[in-house]
Amino acid sequence: MISLRKGFFITLEGGEGAGKSTQRVHIVEWLETHGKEVVETREPGGTAVSEQIRQVLLDTRNAGLDSHAELLLLFAARAQLLQEVIRPALAAGKVVVSDRFTDASYAYQGGGRQMGSEAVALLEKFVHQDLQPDLTLLFDMPIEQGMQRVTGRGQADRFEIESDKFFERVRNTYLERAAESPRRFSIIDARQSQEQVWQQIKVILEAAPGL
Amino acid sequence: MISLRKGFFITLEGGEGAGKSTQRVHIVEWLETHGKEVVETREPGGTAVSEQIRQVLLDTRNAGLDSHAELLLLFAARAQLLQEVIRPALAAGKVVVSDRFTDASYAYQGGGRQMGSEAVALLEKFVHQDLQPDLTLLFDMPIEQGMQRVTGRGQADRFEIESDKFFERVRNTYLERAAESPRRFSIIDARQSQEQVWQQIKVILEAAPGL
Repeated sequence: MISLRKGFFITLEGGEGAGKSTQRVHIVEWLETHGKEVVETREPGGTAVSEQIRQVLLDTRNAGLDSHAELLLLFAARAQLLQEVIRPALAAGKVVVSDRFTDASYAYQGGGRQMGSEAVALLEKFVHQDLQPDLTLLFDMPIEQGMQRVTGRGQADRFEIESDKFFERVRNTYLERAAESPRRFSIIDARQSQEQVWQQIKVILEAAPGL
Repeated sequence: MISLRKGFFITLEGGEGAGKSTQRVHIVEWLETHGKEVVETREPGGTAVSEQIRQVLLDTRNAGLDSHAELLLLFAARAQLLQEVIRPALAAGKVVVSDRFTDASYAYQGGGRQMGSEAVALLEKFVHQDLQPDLTLLFDMPIEQGMQRVTGRGQADRFEIESDKFFERVRNTYLERAAESPRRFSIIDARQSQEQVWQQIKVILEAAPGL
Protein backbone atom coordinates (compact mmCIF):
# COMPACT_ATOMS: atom_id res chain seq x y z
CA MET A 1 0.00 0.00 0.00
CA ILE A 2 1.35 3.39 -0.94
CA SER A 3 1.17 5.92 1.87
CA LEU A 4 2.37 9.48 2.27
CA ARG A 5 3.14 8.67 5.91
CA LYS A 6 6.80 8.14 6.54
CA GLY A 7 6.76 7.42 10.27
CA PHE A 8 5.75 4.41 12.33
CA PHE A 9 3.04 4.30 14.99
CA ILE A 10 3.36 1.92 17.96
CA THR A 11 0.66 1.65 20.62
CA LEU A 12 0.91 -0.10 23.99
CA GLU A 13 -2.33 -1.53 25.29
CA GLY A 14 -3.48 -3.66 28.21
CA GLY A 15 -5.02 -3.62 31.66
CA GLU A 16 -3.79 -2.05 34.85
CA GLY A 17 -0.43 -3.16 36.27
CA ALA A 18 0.67 -4.99 33.14
CA GLY A 19 4.05 -3.27 32.98
CA LYS A 20 3.54 -1.02 29.96
CA SER A 21 5.41 1.96 31.45
CA THR A 22 8.51 -0.07 32.29
CA GLN A 23 8.69 -1.61 28.84
CA ARG A 24 8.06 1.72 27.11
CA VAL A 25 11.43 2.91 28.44
CA HIS A 26 13.17 -0.09 26.86
CA ILE A 27 11.27 0.31 23.59
CA VAL A 28 12.23 3.98 23.26
CA GLU A 29 15.87 3.21 24.08
CA TRP A 30 15.93 0.43 21.49
CA LEU A 31 14.37 2.67 18.82
CA GLU A 32 16.83 5.49 19.50
CA THR A 33 19.76 3.08 19.40
CA HIS A 34 18.50 2.07 15.95
CA GLY A 35 18.60 5.68 14.77
CA LYS A 36 14.90 6.51 15.09
CA GLU A 37 13.53 9.83 16.25
CA VAL A 38 10.91 8.93 18.85
CA VAL A 39 7.89 10.85 20.13
CA GLU A 40 6.38 9.40 23.30
CA THR A 41 2.85 10.13 24.38
CA ARG A 42 0.05 8.80 26.53
CA GLU A 43 -3.72 8.73 26.52
CA PRO A 44 -5.78 10.41 27.64
CA GLY A 45 -3.38 13.36 27.56
CA GLY A 46 -0.26 14.36 25.69
CA THR A 47 -1.28 17.96 24.92
CA ALA A 48 -2.23 20.86 27.19
CA VAL A 49 -5.91 20.56 26.21
CA SER A 50 -5.87 16.76 26.44
CA GLU A 51 -4.31 16.86 29.91
CA GLN A 52 -7.13 19.21 31.01
CA ILE A 53 -9.58 16.62 29.68
CA ARG A 54 -7.63 13.85 31.45
CA GLN A 55 -8.22 15.62 34.76
CA VAL A 56 -12.00 15.55 34.18
CA LEU A 57 -11.85 11.85 33.22
CA LEU A 58 -9.75 10.57 36.11
CA ASP A 59 -11.23 12.71 38.89
CA THR A 60 -13.03 10.38 41.33
CA ARG A 61 -15.36 13.28 42.23
CA ASN A 62 -16.82 12.89 38.73
CA ALA A 63 -18.26 9.48 39.68
CA GLY A 64 -21.53 10.38 37.93
CA LEU A 65 -19.83 10.94 34.58
CA ASP A 66 -22.20 9.73 31.85
CA SER A 67 -20.75 6.92 29.70
CA HIS A 68 -21.49 8.83 26.48
CA ALA A 69 -19.77 11.91 27.90
CA GLU A 70 -16.78 9.79 28.92
CA LEU A 71 -16.37 8.33 25.43
CA LEU A 72 -16.74 11.76 23.81
CA LEU A 73 -14.15 13.26 26.17
CA LEU A 74 -11.70 10.47 25.35
CA PHE A 75 -12.10 11.08 21.63
CA ALA A 76 -11.84 14.86 22.12
CA ALA A 77 -8.50 14.38 23.88
CA ARG A 78 -7.48 11.98 21.09
CA ALA A 79 -8.47 14.39 18.30
CA GLN A 80 -6.28 17.06 19.85
CA LEU A 81 -3.38 14.64 20.35
CA LEU A 82 -3.62 13.50 16.74
CA GLN A 83 -3.62 17.04 15.41
CA GLU A 84 -0.89 18.47 17.64
CA VAL A 85 1.43 15.51 18.11
CA ILE A 86 0.81 12.24 16.30
CA ARG A 87 0.07 13.38 12.73
CA PRO A 88 2.94 15.93 12.59
CA ALA A 89 5.40 13.39 14.05
CA LEU A 90 4.44 10.66 11.57
CA ALA A 91 4.55 13.15 8.68
CA ALA A 92 8.10 14.02 9.78
CA GLY A 93 9.12 10.36 9.66
CA LYS A 94 9.31 9.86 13.42
CA VAL A 95 8.27 6.83 15.46
CA VAL A 96 5.35 7.55 17.77
CA VAL A 97 5.02 5.38 20.88
CA SER A 98 1.68 5.92 22.61
CA ASP A 99 0.64 4.45 25.94
CA ARG A 100 -2.94 3.53 24.89
CA PHE A 101 -4.96 4.61 21.84
CA THR A 102 -8.35 3.76 20.35
CA ASP A 103 -8.15 0.05 21.18
CA ALA A 104 -8.43 1.19 24.81
CA SER A 105 -11.78 2.86 24.03
CA TYR A 106 -13.03 -0.40 22.51
CA ALA A 107 -11.81 -2.28 25.59
CA TYR A 108 -12.82 0.09 28.42
CA GLN A 109 -15.91 1.84 27.07
CA GLY A 110 -17.10 -0.65 24.42
CA GLY A 111 -16.35 -3.71 26.58
CA GLY A 112 -15.90 -2.58 30.19
CA ARG A 113 -18.82 -0.14 30.19
CA GLN A 114 -20.75 -2.37 27.74
CA MET A 115 -21.40 0.47 25.27
CA GLY A 116 -20.60 -1.90 22.40
CA SER A 117 -18.11 -1.55 19.58
CA GLU A 118 -20.45 0.36 17.24
CA ALA A 119 -20.41 3.54 19.31
CA VAL A 120 -16.62 3.44 19.44
CA ALA A 121 -16.32 2.67 15.73
CA LEU A 122 -18.52 5.66 14.92
CA LEU A 123 -16.24 8.06 16.80
CA GLU A 124 -13.09 6.36 15.50
CA LYS A 125 -14.36 6.97 11.98
CA PHE A 126 -15.09 10.61 12.82
CA VAL A 127 -11.68 11.31 14.38
CA HIS A 128 -9.12 9.14 12.57
CA GLN A 129 -10.62 7.04 9.81
CA ASP A 130 -7.39 7.32 7.86
CA LEU A 131 -4.89 6.56 10.58
CA GLN A 132 -4.27 3.29 12.46
CA PRO A 133 -1.31 2.07 14.52
CA ASP A 134 1.29 0.06 12.62
CA LEU A 135 2.03 -2.12 15.63
CA THR A 136 0.05 -2.68 18.83
CA LEU A 137 1.65 -4.48 21.76
CA LEU A 138 -1.08 -5.92 23.99
CA PHE A 139 0.20 -6.56 27.52
CA ASP A 140 -2.04 -9.38 28.66
CA MET A 141 -2.28 -10.94 32.11
CA PRO A 142 -4.98 -12.35 34.41
CA ILE A 143 -6.96 -9.59 36.16
CA GLU A 144 -6.00 -10.62 39.74
CA GLN A 145 -2.28 -10.32 39.03
CA GLY A 146 -2.62 -6.88 37.47
CA MET A 147 -4.72 -5.64 40.37
CA GLN A 148 -2.15 -6.88 42.88
CA ARG A 149 0.48 -4.80 41.12
CA VAL A 150 -1.69 -1.67 41.02
CA THR A 151 -2.58 -1.86 44.73
CA GLY A 152 -0.04 0.13 46.69
CA ARG A 153 0.62 2.64 43.89
CA GLY A 154 -1.35 5.22 45.89
CA GLN A 155 -4.77 6.81 45.32
CA ALA A 156 -6.78 4.85 42.73
CA ASP A 157 -8.28 6.89 39.86
CA ARG A 158 -11.85 6.76 38.49
CA PHE A 159 -11.06 3.71 36.32
CA GLU A 160 -8.99 1.79 38.86
CA ILE A 161 -11.92 1.62 41.31
CA GLU A 162 -14.01 -0.44 38.85
CA SER A 163 -15.03 -4.06 39.57
CA ASP A 164 -13.25 -7.28 38.55
CA LYS A 165 -16.06 -8.01 36.08
CA PHE A 166 -15.40 -4.67 34.39
CA PHE A 167 -11.72 -5.57 33.98
CA GLU A 168 -12.60 -9.06 32.73
CA ARG A 169 -14.67 -7.46 29.97
CA VAL A 170 -11.79 -5.06 29.21
CA ARG A 171 -9.36 -7.95 28.90
CA ASN A 172 -11.67 -10.05 26.77
CA THR A 173 -12.35 -7.16 24.40
CA TYR A 174 -8.64 -6.53 23.98
CA LEU A 175 -8.09 -10.22 23.17
CA GLU A 176 -10.98 -10.20 20.67
CA ARG A 177 -9.53 -7.16 18.92
CA ALA A 178 -6.12 -8.82 18.76
CA ALA A 179 -7.73 -11.90 17.20
CA GLU A 180 -9.45 -9.69 14.60
CA SER A 181 -6.23 -7.89 13.58
CA PRO A 182 -3.43 -10.43 14.06
CA ARG A 183 -1.03 -8.58 11.75
CA ARG A 184 -1.22 -5.38 13.76
CA PHE A 185 -1.39 -6.90 17.26
CA SER A 186 1.28 -8.79 19.17
CA ILE A 187 0.15 -10.26 22.46
CA ILE A 188 2.73 -9.98 25.22
CA ASP A 189 2.51 -12.47 28.09
CA ALA A 190 2.81 -9.91 30.89
CA ARG A 191 3.00 -12.56 33.63
CA GLN A 192 6.65 -13.14 32.70
CA SER A 193 9.53 -11.31 34.36
CA GLN A 194 10.36 -7.82 33.07
CA GLU A 195 13.46 -9.21 31.34
CA GLN A 196 11.49 -11.99 29.65
CA VAL A 197 8.83 -9.50 28.51
CA TRP A 198 11.48 -7.21 27.05
CA GLN A 199 13.11 -10.12 25.18
CA GLN A 200 9.72 -10.95 23.66
CA ILE A 201 9.17 -7.32 22.62
CA LYS A 202 12.67 -7.00 21.15
CA VAL A 203 12.04 -9.97 18.84
CA ILE A 204 8.77 -8.30 17.69
CA LEU A 205 10.47 -4.95 17.05
CA GLU A 206 13.31 -6.58 15.09
CA ALA A 207 10.80 -8.34 12.87
CA ALA A 208 8.38 -5.41 12.40
CA PRO A 209 8.04 -4.57 8.68
CA GLY A 210 8.52 -0.89 7.98
CA LEU A 211 10.26 -0.07 11.27
CA MET B 1 -47.30 11.14 18.67
CA ILE B 2 -47.45 9.28 21.96
CA SER B 3 -44.58 10.08 24.28
CA LEU B 4 -43.70 9.06 27.82
CA ARG B 5 -42.26 12.55 28.31
CA LYS B 6 -44.46 14.82 30.35
CA GLY B 7 -42.36 17.99 30.40
CA PHE B 8 -41.65 20.67 27.82
CA PHE B 9 -38.26 21.61 26.41
CA ILE B 10 -37.58 25.20 25.29
CA THR B 11 -34.26 26.23 23.78
CA LEU B 12 -32.99 29.76 23.15
CA GLU B 13 -30.66 30.14 20.20
CA GLY B 14 -28.95 32.93 18.32
CA GLY B 15 -25.75 34.89 17.91
CA GLU B 16 -23.86 37.02 20.36
CA GLY B 17 -25.59 40.04 21.88
CA ALA B 18 -29.08 39.06 20.72
CA GLY B 19 -30.62 39.46 24.17
CA LYS B 20 -31.29 35.81 25.06
CA SER B 21 -30.29 36.22 28.72
CA THR B 22 -32.62 39.16 29.32
CA GLN B 23 -35.60 37.40 27.74
CA ARG B 24 -34.88 34.16 29.58
CA VAL B 25 -35.70 35.94 32.82
CA HIS B 26 -39.11 37.01 31.43
CA ILE B 27 -39.80 33.54 30.02
CA VAL B 28 -39.08 31.83 33.33
CA GLU B 29 -41.26 34.34 35.22
CA TRP B 30 -44.11 33.83 32.76
CA LEU B 31 -43.85 30.03 33.03
CA GLU B 32 -43.83 30.12 36.84
CA THR B 33 -46.80 32.49 36.87
CA HIS B 34 -48.58 29.88 34.76
CA GLY B 35 -47.90 27.19 37.37
CA LYS B 36 -44.97 25.48 35.68
CA GLU B 37 -41.96 24.12 37.50
CA VAL B 38 -38.98 25.45 35.55
CA VAL B 39 -35.41 24.19 35.25
CA GLU B 40 -33.01 26.69 33.69
CA THR B 41 -29.73 25.68 32.17
CA ARG B 42 -27.09 26.82 29.72
CA GLU B 43 -24.69 25.29 27.25
CA PRO B 44 -21.93 24.43 27.38
CA GLY B 45 -22.30 23.87 31.12
CA GLY B 46 -25.10 23.25 33.58
CA THR B 47 -23.44 20.43 35.54
CA ALA B 48 -20.17 20.27 37.49
CA VAL B 49 -18.54 18.16 34.75
CA SER B 50 -20.00 20.27 31.94
CA GLU B 51 -18.76 23.50 33.54
CA GLN B 52 -15.25 21.96 33.69
CA ILE B 53 -15.59 21.25 29.97
CA ARG B 54 -16.89 24.82 29.39
CA GLN B 55 -13.64 26.15 30.87
CA VAL B 56 -11.60 24.19 28.32
CA LEU B 57 -13.85 25.39 25.47
CA LEU B 58 -13.89 29.10 26.27
CA ASP B 59 -10.27 29.50 27.37
CA THR B 60 -8.53 31.76 24.84
CA ARG B 61 -5.23 30.01 25.70
CA ASN B 62 -6.67 26.96 23.93
CA ALA B 63 -6.56 28.79 20.59
CA GLY B 64 -5.16 25.66 18.93
CA LEU B 65 -8.19 23.56 19.89
CA ASP B 66 -8.89 21.13 17.05
CA SER B 67 -12.37 21.53 15.53
CA HIS B 68 -13.14 17.83 15.99
CA ALA B 69 -12.07 18.05 19.64
CA GLU B 70 -14.26 21.13 20.09
CA LEU B 71 -17.35 19.42 18.71
CA LEU B 72 -16.71 16.30 20.81
CA LEU B 73 -16.26 18.41 23.96
CA LEU B 74 -19.54 20.22 23.29
CA PHE B 75 -21.39 16.93 22.92
CA ALA B 76 -19.67 15.50 26.01
CA ALA B 77 -20.92 18.45 28.06
CA ARG B 78 -24.35 17.99 26.46
CA ALA B 79 -24.48 14.25 27.22
CA GLN B 80 -23.79 14.98 30.87
CA LEU B 81 -26.38 17.78 30.97
CA LEU B 82 -28.99 15.52 29.39
CA GLN B 83 -28.36 12.73 31.86
CA GLU B 84 -28.12 14.82 35.02
CA VAL B 85 -30.54 17.64 34.34
CA ILE B 86 -32.67 17.67 31.19
CA ARG B 87 -33.97 14.09 31.03
CA PRO B 88 -34.86 13.87 34.75
CA ALA B 89 -36.59 17.28 34.65
CA LEU B 90 -38.69 16.39 31.58
CA ALA B 91 -39.55 13.00 33.07
CA ALA B 92 -40.79 14.83 36.17
CA GLY B 93 -43.06 17.03 34.04
CA LYS B 94 -40.99 20.20 34.37
CA VAL B 95 -40.30 22.85 31.75
CA VAL B 96 -36.63 23.03 30.79
CA VAL B 97 -35.34 26.34 29.42
CA SER B 98 -31.85 25.99 27.96
CA ASP B 99 -29.69 28.83 26.71
CA ARG B 100 -28.40 27.01 23.57
CA PHE B 101 -28.58 23.34 22.63
CA THR B 102 -27.69 21.23 19.59
CA ASP B 103 -28.83 23.83 17.04
CA ALA B 104 -25.88 25.87 18.30
CA SER B 105 -23.51 23.05 17.29
CA TYR B 106 -25.02 23.03 13.80
CA ALA B 107 -24.64 26.82 13.64
CA TYR B 108 -21.20 27.33 15.23
CA GLN B 109 -19.31 24.13 14.36
CA GLY B 110 -21.26 22.90 11.33
CA GLY B 111 -21.68 26.40 9.83
CA GLY B 112 -19.19 28.74 11.52
CA ARG B 113 -16.27 26.29 11.49
CA GLN B 114 -17.50 24.78 8.21
CA MET B 115 -17.47 21.20 9.55
CA GLY B 116 -20.79 20.54 7.84
CA SER B 117 -24.05 19.28 9.24
CA GLU B 118 -23.25 15.58 8.82
CA ALA B 119 -20.62 15.56 11.58
CA VAL B 120 -23.03 17.28 13.95
CA ALA B 121 -25.91 14.98 12.97
CA LEU B 122 -23.75 11.94 13.69
CA LEU B 123 -23.04 13.10 17.25
CA GLU B 124 -26.62 14.27 17.77
CA LYS B 125 -27.77 10.77 16.89
CA PHE B 126 -25.23 9.27 19.29
CA VAL B 127 -26.17 11.51 22.23
CA HIS B 128 -29.89 12.31 21.93
CA GLN B 129 -31.52 10.65 18.96
CA ASP B 130 -34.78 10.38 20.92
CA LEU B 131 -34.97 13.87 22.37
CA GLN B 132 -35.55 17.19 20.59
CA PRO B 133 -36.67 20.59 21.88
CA ASP B 134 -40.41 21.24 21.74
CA LEU B 135 -39.88 24.94 21.03
CA THR B 136 -36.81 26.82 19.84
CA LEU B 137 -36.72 30.61 19.97
CA LEU B 138 -34.16 31.89 17.49
CA PHE B 139 -33.00 35.42 18.37
CA ASP B 140 -32.01 36.79 14.99
CA MET B 141 -30.32 40.06 14.20
CA PRO B 142 -27.70 41.40 11.75
CA ILE B 143 -24.15 40.51 12.83
CA GLU B 144 -22.93 44.12 13.22
CA GLN B 145 -25.65 44.98 15.71
CA GLY B 146 -24.97 41.89 17.85
CA MET B 147 -21.25 42.60 17.88
CA GLN B 148 -21.83 46.19 18.97
CA ARG B 149 -23.77 44.90 21.98
CA VAL B 150 -21.11 42.32 22.92
CA THR B 151 -18.26 44.84 22.75
CA GLY B 152 -17.80 46.36 26.16
CA ARG B 153 -18.95 43.28 28.09
CA GLY B 154 -15.33 42.68 29.08
CA GLN B 155 -12.82 40.02 28.02
CA ALA B 156 -14.00 38.20 24.85
CA ASP B 157 -13.98 34.37 25.01
CA ARG B 158 -12.59 31.93 22.40
CA PHE B 159 -15.77 32.17 20.30
CA GLU B 160 -16.29 35.92 20.57
CA ILE B 161 -12.92 36.63 18.93
CA GLU B 162 -14.02 34.97 15.65
CA SER B 163 -14.42 36.93 12.40
CA ASP B 164 -17.55 38.53 10.94
CA LYS B 165 -17.61 35.86 8.21
CA PHE B 166 -17.71 33.19 10.90
CA PHE B 167 -20.74 34.86 12.51
CA GLU B 168 -22.43 35.31 9.11
CA ARG B 169 -22.17 31.54 8.58
CA VAL B 170 -23.51 30.97 12.11
CA ARG B 171 -26.50 33.21 11.43
CA ASN B 172 -27.23 31.68 8.04
CA THR B 173 -27.09 28.14 9.42
CA TYR B 174 -29.50 29.07 12.20
CA LEU B 175 -31.91 30.54 9.65
CA GLU B 176 -31.62 27.45 7.43
CA ARG B 177 -32.40 25.18 10.37
CA ALA B 178 -35.40 27.32 11.27
CA ALA B 179 -36.64 27.02 7.69
CA GLU B 180 -36.27 23.23 7.84
CA SER B 181 -38.25 22.88 11.10
CA PRO B 182 -40.83 25.69 11.05
CA ARG B 183 -43.07 24.00 13.61
CA ARG B 184 -40.33 23.83 16.24
CA PHE B 185 -38.63 27.16 15.50
CA SER B 186 -39.93 30.66 16.09
CA ILE B 187 -37.74 33.44 14.77
CA ILE B 188 -37.53 36.45 17.05
CA ASP B 189 -36.62 39.79 15.48
CA ALA B 190 -33.97 40.74 18.04
CA ARG B 191 -33.48 44.24 16.58
CA GLN B 192 -36.66 45.33 18.34
CA SER B 193 -36.69 46.85 21.81
CA GLN B 194 -36.58 44.46 24.77
CA GLU B 195 -40.26 45.14 25.45
CA GLN B 196 -41.26 44.43 21.84
CA VAL B 197 -39.20 41.23 21.82
CA TRP B 198 -40.88 40.08 25.03
CA GLN B 199 -44.35 40.79 23.59
CA GLN B 200 -43.47 38.66 20.56
CA ILE B 201 -42.24 35.81 22.77
CA LYS B 202 -45.32 35.99 25.02
CA VAL B 203 -47.61 35.47 22.03
CA ILE B 204 -45.55 32.43 21.02
CA LEU B 205 -45.64 30.94 24.54
CA GLU B 206 -49.40 31.47 24.81
CA ALA B 207 -49.93 29.64 21.53
CA ALA B 208 -47.44 26.80 22.12
CA PRO B 209 -49.23 23.43 21.95
CA GLY B 210 -48.46 21.23 24.95
CA LEU B 211 -47.13 24.01 27.14
